[in-house]
Amino acid sequence: MRVAVIGASGYTGAEALRLIVGHPYLEVGPLVGRQHAGKPISEVLPHLTGLVDDIVQPLDIRAIKAEADLVVSALPHGASAEIVASLRDEGLPVFDLSADFRLEDRDVYRTWYGDHGAPQWFGRSVYGLVELYRERLREADLVAVPGCYPTASILALAPLISEKVVDPKGIVVDAKSGVSGAGRGASEATHFPHAAEGIKAYKVAGQHRHTPEIEQELSKLAGTPLALTFTPHLAPMTRGILATAYAMATAPRPADSQNECILAAQRFYASSPSVVVLDPGQNPDTRAVRGSNRAHLAYHFDPRTGRVIAQAAIDNLIKGAAGQAIQCINVRFGWDEADGLSGPAVWP
Amino acid sequence: MRVAVIGASGYTGAEALRLIVGHPYLEVGPLVGRQHAGKPISEVLPHLTGLVDDIVQPLDIRAIKAEADLVVSALPHGASAEIVASLRDEGLPVFDLSADFRLEDRDVYRTWYGDHGAPQWFGRSVYGLVELYRERLREADLVAVPGCYPTASILALAPLISEKVVDPKGIVVDAKSGVSGAGRGASEATHFPHAAEGIKAYKVAGQHRHTPEIEQELSKLAGTPLALTFTPHLAPMTRGILATAYAMATAPRPADSQNECILAAQRFYASSPSVVVLDPGQNPDTRAVRGSNRAHLAYHFDPRTGRVIAQAAIDNLIKGAAGQAIQCINVRFGWDEADGLSGPAVWP
Amino acid sequence: MRVAVIGASGYTGAEALRLIVGHPYLEVGPLVGRQHAGKPISEVLPHLTGLVDDIVQPLDIRAIKAEADLVVSALPHGASAEIVASLRDEGLPVFDLSADFRLEDRDVYRTWYGDHGAPQWFGRSVYGLVELYRERLREADLVAVPGCYPTASILALAPLISEKVVDPKGIVVDAKSGVSGAGRGASEATHFPHAAEGIKAYKVAGQHRHTPEIEQELSKLAGTPLALTFTPHLAPMTRGILATAYAMATAPRPADSQNECILAAQRFYASSPSVVVLDPGQNPDTRAVRGSNRAHLAYHFDPRTGRVIAQAAIDNLIKGAAGQAIQCINVRFGWDEADGLSGPAVWP
Amino acid sequence: MRVAVIGASGYTGAEALRLIVGHPYLEVGPLVGRQHAGKPISEVLPHLTGLVDDIVQPLDIRAIKAEADLVVSALPHGASAEIVASLRDEGLPVFDLSADFRLEDRDVYRTWYGDHGAPQWFGRSVYGLVELYRERLREADLVAVPGCYPTASILALAPLISEKVVDPKGIVVDAKSGVSGAGRGASEATHFPHAAEGIKAYKVAGQHRHTPEIEQELSKLAGTPLALTFTPHLAPMTRGILATAYAMATAPRPADSQNECILAAQRFYASSPSVVVLDPGQNPDTRAVRGSNRAHLAYHFDPRTGRVIAQAAIDNLIKGAAGQAIQCINVRFGWDEADGLSGPAVWP
Repeated sequence: MRVAVIGASGYTGAEALRLIVGHPYLEVGPLVGRQHAGKPISEVLPHLTGLVDDIVQPLDIRAIKAEADLVVSALPHGASAEIVASLRDEGLPVFDLSADFRLEDRDVYRTWYGDHGAPQWFGRSVYGLVELYRERLREADLVAVPGCYPTASILALAPLISEKVVDPKGIVVDAKSGVSGAGRGASEATHFPHAAEGIKAYKVAGQHRHTPEIEQELSKLAGTPLALTFTPHLAPMTRGILATAYAMATAPRPADSQNECILAAQRFYASSPSVVVLDPGQNPDTRAVRGSNRAHLAYHFDPRTGRVIAQAAIDNLIKGAAGQAIQCINVRFGWDEADGLSGPAVWP
Repeated sequence: MRVAVIGASGYTGAEALRLIVGHPYLEVGPLVGRQHAGKPISEVLPHLTGLVDDIVQPLDIRAIKAEADLVVSALPHGASAEIVASLRDEGLPVFDLSADFRLEDRDVYRTWYGDHGAPQWFGRSVYGLVELYRERLREADLVAVPGCYPTASILALAPLISEKVVDPKGIVVDAKSGVSGAGRGASEATHFPHAAEGIKAYKVAGQHRHTPEIEQELSKLAGTPLALTFTPHLAPMTRGILATAYAMATAPRPADSQNECILAAQRFYASSPSVVVLDPGQNPDTRAVRGSNRAHLAYHFDPRTGRVIAQAAIDNLIKGAAGQAIQCINVRFGWDEADGLSGPAVWP
Repeated sequence: MRVAVIGASGYTGAEALRLIVGHPYLEVGPLVGRQHAGKPISEVLPHLTGLVDDIVQPLDIRAIKAEADLVVSALPHGASAEIVASLRDEGLPVFDLSADFRLEDRDVYRTWYGDHGAPQWFGRSVYGLVELYRERLREADLVAVPGCYPTASILALAPLISEKVVDPKGIVVDAKSGVSGAGRGASEATHFPHAAEGIKAYKVAGQHRHTPEIEQELSKLAGTPLALTFTPHLAPMTRGILATAYAMATAPRPADSQNECILAAQRFYASSPSVVVLDPGQNPDTRAVRGSNRAHLAYHFDPRTGRVIAQAAIDNLIKGAAGQAIQCINVRFGWDEADGLSGPAVWP
Repeated sequence: MRVAVIGASGYTGAEALRLIVGHPYLEVGPLVGRQHAGKPISEVLPHLTGLVDDIVQPLDIRAIKAEADLVVSALPHGASAEIVASLRDEGLPVFDLSADFRLEDRDVYRTWYGDHGAPQWFGRSVYGLVELYRERLREADLVAVPGCYPTASILALAPLISEKVVDPKGIVVDAKSGVSGAGRGASEATHFPHAAEGIKAYKVAGQHRHTPEIEQELSKLAGTPLALTFTPHLAPMTRGILATAYAMATAPRPADSQNECILAAQRFYASSPSVVVLDPGQNPDTRAVRGSNRAHLAYHFDPRTGRVIAQAAIDNLIKGAAGQAIQCINVRFGWDEADGLSGPAVWP
C-alpha cells in the first residue's frame, strides 16, 4: 500500500519515511511539503541521499487520492484540520500527527487551540494510542496520533489508574524531552548554545497544550474527571522523552505496592509488543529506546511518603510520533502490530 | 589566610582551588591528596597548568597545622569524619564538604551512612547554608557544607515553608543533575556513551542519601517533621542542578499565589547576594548560573490543581559545593559574603 | 544460518546482535562473553530487554561448533588470535573484528601489537572491506574486518590513489571519532565530564595502531609504499567518525579537479550500495549516517594550494565495525550485499 | 575607565561585559544594541540578572563620547567599519572585534568581504594579537582584534615559522570550533538537533574568510607570501577551538624535532602570560581553557613522515574574541597584561 506523507521534510515526516522504507507492506507514495516543494527529498533529509530521491510535491488532494492508499499527515495543529478533512472527504484513511483531532471536547479544543478548522469531522476520530484503543483502531479511518508527552505520560499511568492502584487526584508529571520535540524550525530556544549543556523547564503550571490530552485519557480510565500538574523540560539531547510521574498509592502497603504496580502494568500491556515493563529496581533510560518504537516503563514505591513513582521512556519521534502512526496503520490493516517496528533501539 | 585543600584533585577540590586563586584574602596552602601525592597538581588538573604548580602532599595533620590557617576538606563521607576531627583537635577551622557533619540526628546518620567516625564531634557543626545560618556561621569552626541537591531543593522551598505559603506535607522534588555531581571517578554509569544523549533517574523512591538532609532543614523551617519524595536524575551535561519542586498552596488564591511565593522568596533572600529570584513567568536555566556561585529561583502557581511549582538552578560544583564553602569562609572571617564569588556565570 | 557472537556484551557485539535480529537470513546463535557469562544478555544490553533474552555463555569452542554456522568475533586484539584459530580449526567461518588478522606483514604486526597468538593462520585472511575485496570475500572463511578509522580513511582516499588523481606522498588524515570507538570500558578519558563539551587529539604523530592498516591498503592501491600522518581526535558524541584527508592533486587543474575526484569516486563505488558520493559543495555529516551502514564521501579542491580535501563520514560501530562484518557475511554467502543493512540513518 | 560595548547582547559582547565587570580598572559604560535597545541587558543575557541591569541603548556616537573612555565594538563585519570610523573621528580608542580592520591589503579585503565602509581608516589599525604586536599595541587607538580561528592557528604556528623550524609551504590547518563561534543568531545549521551529537566540516577548500587573515600574519613571520589549506569544522560543544596544524619540518631530525618546536614556542611566548606550552606528549584540551583567556599549545613530530603537528586550544569567545580585546586594552593602557584575565578555566 502506498502512503502519502504530508509534511515530509519535518522530523516526524522524515521518521515516517524511514519507517515506511523498512516496512514489509508499505511503500513511499507522494511526499508533500510546502517549503521545499520541487526539491528532491534527499536535499532536505540528508540521511536519505541515494535511498529516496522523490521530489517533494505541493499539496494536491486529487493527486494524493490518485497515487496513495492512505495518508500520514505531519502538519502543525491548525493547519492540519482542513487538509485532513479534505482527504477524508475523498475517502482516504488519514493518520494525523497533529493535535487537531485528539481532543473530544470542543470547548477544551477552543480553550487551548482556538477555532477548529473542520468542525464537521471533530469527534469522529479514534485516539491513536494502540495500547488503549486497539479494537476501535481496527476500523478507524481518522486516527489522531497522540503527542509525545501524552504517550509517555499515559503509558506510565494508565495501568495504575485503570486498576485503581493510585489516587487519580494530585498526580504530578515531570517530563524531560529531547530538543527534536520542538520540531525542525530553528529558534532562540533551540539554538545549540542555548539548548546544550544545561536543562530548563518551560510552559510551567499547566500551560503546555499536551496537558488536556493527558487529562482526557486518564480521566476516562479513572471514570472521573482528573486534573494533574504537568511540567515539561528541555533536556540537552536530540531524541527521547522521560516522564517521571508521581501519584499517591490508594492503600500504601510498603511490602508489596511496587509489585502491585508492576503486575498491574504487566497485565495491562500483556498483548502490547511495544511496551516493556522493567524489573523491580530498574529505571528507564531514553538511550535504551532511542531509534525504536518501544516504551520502557518502571514502577517504584516510596513507603516513607506513600507515593508511587511511575516512569516511561520513549523516543519522541517514534513511539511518540511516526512509529505510533505506523503502529496504528498496522492495526488498521490487520497486520502484525509490530510489522516494520520490531527493531531494537540503536544503543549506545 | 592560607587554605589547605584536602582532596584537591577531585572536582570540588579543583573548584575550591580555582576560587581561592581568585579570592582577595585567601591563598593556596597545602594541597592534600592520596592518589596523586607527589605530583604537581597541574598534572591532575589540566586547567591549572602554568598557574598552580604546587606538589600534592600526603595527609599530615601537623604539616597542615603548620602551614594553613583553615581547611577546606573535600573527602568522601566516612573517610572524612576522623580526619576532620583531627584537624579540629588541632584547632583548625574546617569547612567540610562531606556529609559527615550535616545531619543532626545520629540515628538518621547511622541509617543512611553507618557508624560515624568521630562521634565526639557529631552535633558540633553548623550547617553551611549561609542563607539559613548566616549568624551562626560567623562563629563556626566546624562547618558542614551542604550537598548539591539539598542546596537547590532547600533554597527553592525554604521561603514557602518558612512563611507557610505551602503545605509541608506531600512535597515532591524532581531534580536533574549534571554528571560532575558523581565525582571524578570513572564508572559504567558515567562512561560517556552511557551518560550522553539521554536522561535517566536513579536511586528512586527515597533511596538517595541527600533526602534526610533536605528533610532535616525543611522540617526545622516548618516546625514539624516532614517527609518528601526526592527523585534525582542524571542529565547529559557536565555541570548544573535544576530542582523542580511541587507543593500544595495552603490557600489557593489563583489571583495572587504566584506573587505571594515570589514576595516570600524576595523577603527571605533580601540580604543574600547569591540568590536571584526571577520575575514572574521566567524559568531558571542551569546555563545561566554555570561557573558562578548564584542560585536562580522561580515560582509558578497552577490554579487548576492548587499546586506551587518552585524551581532552583545552581552550579553543583560551586553554589552546590566549593563556592558555598568559600561563602561560609567569607561569613566566618567577617568579609563580604560575595568576596571572590561575585563573577557572573560563563554564558553561554 | 545461526551466528555465534563472541564478545556479545561490548558495543560492536551489541550492534552485531541488533543487525542479526533484523537480518532476513541470519539468526542469533550462542552469545559468548567472559565477564557477563551466566546473565541474560538483556541485563547487559538494556535495549534488548524483551527482545533477546539468551543467556551469555562462557567460551566453549565445541558448543559453538555444535550450535553455530558462522562466528562474529568481537574480542580485543591479542585475545582474539588464538580463539579465532581454534574456531577456524573447527572449520567455522570467522568474521573477526579485532586487529589480529588485518596486517599482512608480520614484522609490522609485531611492531604495533607484539607477538601474534596464532602465527599459523597469519596471512590467510581476507581484509573485510567489501568495497576493495568483494571478489575475494566470496570465498573467504577468515575475514579480518577493518577498524573504524581505516574504513573511513581508506574509503575517502582509495579512488583518488587508485586512479592517481592525488600524490600518494604527503597525505594527512585528520580524524574525529565518537567516544563509543573507545569501547565499553569506563576510563578517565571517557568519563563524561572529561569527554563532553570539548575536543582533544590523542596518539598524535603516528602512534595510533590503525595507521599501518591504512597505509597497507593505500600502498597496495598506489602500487608503492606510502606513509601518511594520521591524527585521531575524540569528539563529544557517542557515534560517528569523520575523516578529513588532505592530499596534493597530481595535476592541479582548478577548473575540474573537484569533478575529477568525484567522478573517480563514483566509478570506484559504482556497485557499492553502502557508499554515497555527495554532490559538489556538500560535506558529509556523521549525523546523516548514524545508525546506518552507509559511508558518505565528499571531495573538494583548493586551487590556491593545489590540495584535494577528501572526507568520509561513517557510523563507527556499523560501517566501521558490526555492519561491515554483516556486509562481508552477505557477500560470503551470496546474498544481496545490503541485506539487513539497507535502513537509512536515524536522523536527526 | 568606562568602556562602551557596542553589540552588547551578542556572545562576544556578553563575554566582554563579564570580563569588564571583573576587571580592576574598567567599568561598564553605555551598552549599545539595535535589536534589544530599550530593554535591560539582563533580559537578554540571563546570567547577568541582578548583576548588570543597564538599559541597552541605541547607537549614539555623541552619547558614547560623553560617557565612555574607550569602546569595544562587537558588530558584524561590514556594519562595523563606518561606526568604528565615527568613533575614531571622535578620538575614542576602539577595540574592534569585527574583521573590518584586520587585513592590510585592500584588494584582499575586497575579494573576501566586498567594499570597505571606511577606506580612510583602512590600514591605520594594529592587529590585536598581543603575542605578536605587544609593542605596537601600547600606542594603538584602532585595534583589530583577531578572529577565533586565526588566533588559534597563528599562535600554534607562529614560533615554528618565525624560527624556520617548519617549511612555510604546504601547511594544513584542520580546525574544530564550538557552535558559539557562529554567533547568537539561530539558523538551520545551529539548530540543536543538527549541531549536537555529530561533526561536520564547512566552507572547505579555502572558502572561510579567516583564511587570508591567517595567511597574512604567517606570511609576515615567514618573510614570504604563504598560502595554506584551512578547514573549519563544527563540533558539538558550545565553546572552544582546537586547531590541529600540519607542517613539514625543515630538517627532520627525529631525535629532537619535537623538542626544537617546544623550545621555539617557549622562547617565543616567554613573556606571554596567556600562552601555555604543554610538556612533550601532552595534547591541548578545549575543556582545560574554557572560560579562560589562555591558549594551550602542543607540538609533536612524526619521524615517519617528517611532519610537525602543532596544536592550539582556546576558548573562542575569550582568547578568540572578548578576552583578547581586554588583553589589548591592558597593554594599551599600561596595565598588567593579565589584569582581569588571570582566572583559570572552569574545569571540568
